[in-house]
Amino acid sequence: MIDASTLTRLRSIVGASNYFDGPEDKITYSYDGTPLLNQLPDAILRPQSPAEIAQVLALANQERFAVVPRGSGSGLSGGSVPTENSVVLLTNHWTRVLEIDERNLTAWVEPGVLTAAFQAQVEGKGLFYPPDPGSAAISTLAGNVAENAGGLRGLKYGVTKNYVLGMEVVLPSGDIVLLGGKNVKDVAGYNLKDFLIGSEGTLGVFTKLLLKLIPKPETSRTMLAFYPKLSDAAETVSDIIAAKISPAALEFLDNMTIRCVEEYAHLGLPTDLEALLLIEVDGHHAVVEEEAALIQQLCRKHRAREVKVAADAQEAMRLRSARKVAFSALARVRPTTILEDATVPRSEVAPMLERIQQISKKHGLTFGNFGHAGDGNLHPTCLTDERDTAEIHRAEQAFEEIFEEAVKMGGTITGEHGTGLSKRRFLEKLTPPPAVEMMRRIKESIDPNSVLNPGKIFSLKPRCEGPLPKSREVIEKFLSQGAFT
Amino acid sequence: MIDASTLTRLRSIVGASNYFDGPEDKITYSYDGTPLLNQLPDAILRPQSPAEIAQVLALANQERFAVVPRGSGSGLSGGSVPTENSVVLLTNHWTRVLEIDERNLTAWVEPGVLTAAFQAQVEGKGLFYPPDPGSAAISTLAGNVAENAGGLRGLKYGVTKNYVLGMEVVLPSGDIVLLGGKNVKDVAGYNLKDFLIGSEGTLGVFTKLLLKLIPKPETSRTMLAFYPKLSDAAETVSDIIAAKISPAALEFLDNMTIRCVEEYAHLGLPTDLEALLLIEVDGHHAVVEEEAALIQQLCRKHRAREVKVAADAQEAMRLRSARKVAFSALARVRPTTILEDATVPRSEVAPMLERIQQISKKHGLTFGNFGHAGDGNLHPTCLTDERDTAEIHRAEQAFEEIFEEAVKMGGTITGEHGTGLSKRRFLEKLTPPPAVEMMRRIKESIDPNSVLNPGKIFSLKPRCEGPLPKSREVIEKFLSQGAFT
Repeated sequence: MIDASTLTRLRSIVGASNYFDGPEDKITYSYDGTPLLNQLPDAILRPQSPAEIAQVLALANQERFAVVPRGSGSGLSGGSVPTENSVVLLTNHWTRVLEIDERNLTAWVEPGVLTAAFQAQVEGKGLFYPPDPGSAAISTLAGNVAENAGGLRGLKYGVTKNYVLGMEVVLPSGDIVLLGGKNVKDVAGYNLKDFLIGSEGTLGVFTKLLLKLIPKPETSRTMLAFYPKLSDAAETVSDIIAAKISPAALEFLDNMTIRCVEEYAHLGLPTDLEALLLIEVDGHHAVVEEEAALIQQLCRKHRAREVKVAADAQEAMRLRSARKVAFSALARVRPTTILEDATVPRSEVAPMLERIQQISKKHGLTFGNFGHAGDGNLHPTCLTDERDTAEIHRAEQAFEEIFEEAVKMGGTITGEHGTGLSKRRFLEKLTPPPAVEMMRRIKESIDPNSVLNPGKIFSLKPRCEGPLPKSREVIEKFLSQGAFT
Repeated sequence: MIDASTLTRLRSIVGASNYFDGPEDKITYSYDGTPLLNQLPDAILRPQSPAEIAQVLALANQERFAVVPRGSGSGLSGGSVPTENSVVLLTNHWTRVLEIDERNLTAWVEPGVLTAAFQAQVEGKGLFYPPDPGSAAISTLAGNVAENAGGLRGLKYGVTKNYVLGMEVVLPSGDIVLLGGKNVKDVAGYNLKDFLIGSEGTLGVFTKLLLKLIPKPETSRTMLAFYPKLSDAAETVSDIIAAKISPAALEFLDNMTIRCVEEYAHLGLPTDLEALLLIEVDGHHAVVEEEAALIQQLCRKHRAREVKVAADAQEAMRLRSARKVAFSALARVRPTTILEDATVPRSEVAPMLERIQQISKKHGLTFGNFGHAGDGNLHPTCLTDERDTAEIHRAEQAFEEIFEEAVKMGGTITGEHGTGLSKRRFLEKLTPPPAVEMMRRIKESIDPNSVLNPGKIFSLKPRCEGPLPKSREVIEKFLSQGAFT
C-alpha cells in the first residue's frame, strides 16, 4: 500500500477532481480486457499535462511506488492491469487531433484519440491511416502504439509501428522528450522512437503521437470465400501470395467461429464450412479489378463452394463484419473467453491450425480460431469458465503447448497484443535467455527504481516476480474486507 | 596498444592466416569512406565463424580492448574507423546468399553480400529487394543494416530497416542470439531487432541477416525534368505528393552537381539549370502510365524546360546514372569531398537549400547539393582540401550551421549515413540531453566494458571522449616512427 501522505501529495499534483480512490474506482480499474487478471490500484490519476505526469514519476522515484499507464483498458495481455503498490495513470481523456499536415502527410494527435474516429477524420481529407485494430472500436491510438497492435489491414500496410513517426514521451526519470519528426528519415543515434513503440508502457508515457498518413486508396473490393475444407483455404492463401498480390486484408475464420458469428450476426454464412476467407484488395481501380478477378479464380481453383463479392461499400462492410465480430461472437458462448495471438510463418498456418485442433481435443477444450492468414497471425480463442479451476488449468496447459509449437515453427508468442502480464512466463521460457537479459538490463538502465509499469513483459528482481493475481480472489478479498461498508 | 600476449591469443583464435598486423594492413584499415578521420588498429581479424567472434569479444571483455566491426568500409561517418587499442573485425568475406524462400518471401544472407549482387539474384526469381544504397556498388548488406542506409528508392519503399526481419547477432557479451523471424509479426518483448539495426556496430556484430522480399514491380518509368529555377522543382515535388503519387524515386541535383555530372559522364545535361529532378514510378502498368503522364504534366505546369522519358530499360539506366554518379562526379573537383546528409521535412527542402547556399557563400566554400527531394534527405557536399587547415575549419563551421538549421526546421543531422565518429558532437549538441543519456545508459547496460565499437554515436566516459584523430597526422606519425623500416 502506498502511504497516506504520498497519496495526499499525488492528489495535490493532479487536483482533487482528477484523483480517485473509492472502492468502485479501484474495482473499475483493477482489470483490462484480459480475463483472469486483477489487481487493485491504490489510486487512479487523471493528469492534466505532461508536467503533472513528470511530477508523479518524480514522486514515484522518491517514494518507490509503481505507475501504470492506461488507455481504454482494452488490452488483451494485462499490460494495464495494476501491480502492487501502484497508481493507475489515465490518458484516454486526451482525445484531440492536434494537426493534420496535408503537405507532409502527417498528423499530431493526443494519445486518447479513438483509432476509428481518427481514421474517419483523415479519410474526410482524402487521406488514410492504415492500421486498423479490428473490432476494437474503443481502442485508443496510444494503446495500439504501446502494444504495437496490428489489424485487418496488416498484410499490405504493416503494423502500427510503421505509422508512428514520433512522439512526446515522459520518461521514467520524469524527463519530457520529443522523439522523431515529420516524415523525416532519421538515423541519428539509437532508434529510441521505435524501441518505445511496443514497450507496453514500461519505458515511457506517450503524451502526443506523430502519425504518418498515406493517400486514400482509390477503390477497394471485398470478397468472402466459403471452403468445405480448411486445407483448400490455406492453399488459396499460398497461391494469392505466389501470384504477387498483397491484399489489404486476408483473414480466415474456422468452423467454430463461423457458427458463432452466424448465430450472433445473422449474415447468412453457411455453418457447415471448415473455413472462410475474407479478402480485400485496394488501390488503383485497374489493379483492384485485375487482382479481384484473379483472386476469385484462385478461390474456385481450390474448391471454394462460393465466392461473394461486395457490390458496394455497404455490402463490403457487411462482409467485413463476419471477421470484425468474431471475438464478440465467440465471447457469448461461455463465461470466459481467452483470446490469444500466436504467430507462425505464413507457410505454417495450416499445420499450426491442425496442431491447435489436436491440442484442444487432447485437453477436452472448446477453441474457435480466426486471424490473419496472410501474415500467419492466428487468434486461437479458448471458450471456458474461470469458475472451473480444473478447466482453466487445462486451458493454460493448452496455450503453453500452442506457444511452444508456434516458436518451434519459427513463429512467436504474440504478433499484436503484446506480452504484458499474461504472457511474461512464455516470453521468459521461449525467448533466448541473453535476449531476455538484454531487455531486463535496458529496463533497469532507464528505470532503475522500477517505477513505470514494472513486472510487465518480464519479471524484475527483487519486485514483481511473484505469482500472478487471480481475478476473483482479489475482488472477493477486497469486498470481504468491507470495502463498501 | 594491446599487449603482445593478447595479440598472440587473438591470432590463435582466428588462425595465423586470418590475422594481420603489418604496417600496410594497419594503414589500409585505418580509415573508411569518411574524410579527415584515421586511427591505426593494433590488428585486423578475419573470423571464420560467429563462435570465433564470441571468443574475441570474451577476450576483449577480459583484457579491455576494443573490437571494431567492418563491412566494405564504405561508411561516410567514420563508423568503422578504428578507435584506440582496437582490433578491426572483418565481415566482408562472408558473401553467401544462404536461402531464398519464395513461399514466405524472405532470404537469409551473410553480412558481406553486396547489395547490388543480391538484388540481381532475387530479381532473377521475379522478386525484389527494394533498398537501393545508391551509388555504393560496394556496400554490403550488413553495412547498410548497421547504418540503416536509405537509397534512391527511399520514398516508396522506405529505408533498409523495414526490410530486415531478423538476424543472427553476436552480442558484446559474446552470446550468439537469433532475433526476429520469417515475415512473422512479432511484438514479444522489447523490439531488440529494430534497435540493433542502425546501432552502427556498437551493440552487436551481425553474422546472418533475414531479409524481406516483395514481388518485383511489373513495370517502371524513369523521367528527368530540367528546371531553370530551383523553386519550380520544389513546387513540382509538392504537387506530385499532393497528387497522392508515391514515386519509387524522386531525386534532385543542383546546378553545381549537374555541371560536375555532365563533365564526368557526358549525359547531355544542360549545364545552365538551377535544378534537375529524377523521377521514377513503378508498379502495375496501368498505374505507371497514368502516374507518369500526370507527373510530366505537373513538371510542365511548373516550367520545366524539358522532360525526358526513358523509352526502355537501357535509357532508364542512363537517366538514373545522372543521380547515381553525383558523388563520384563531385569528388573529382577538389582533393577532399565531405558528403553529408541533413534531412528536413519535405515541405522545407527549398528553404533548406537556400540556407545552405547562404551558409556556403558566407564561409567562402564550394558546395554541391543533391539528394532525395521526396523525403527531405539532402546531401550537401563540400568540395575542399584537407591540406588547407583554414578552409577545413570553415567547412566544419558551415556544417555545424547546416545541421543546426536542419534541426530547427524539424529535421535531423543524418537520414541515412549514421552518426559514427564524425557526427557525434552534433548528436550530443542537437539531441535532447535525456535522449542522449538514455542511449548512453543502454550502451553501458549491454556493453559494460565498452568493448564493441566504443565512442561511436556518442562519447563514453571515461574512455573515447578525446578529440577526434585527424587524417594525415596519424599516418605521418606512424611512418615517422619507422613503420616500414
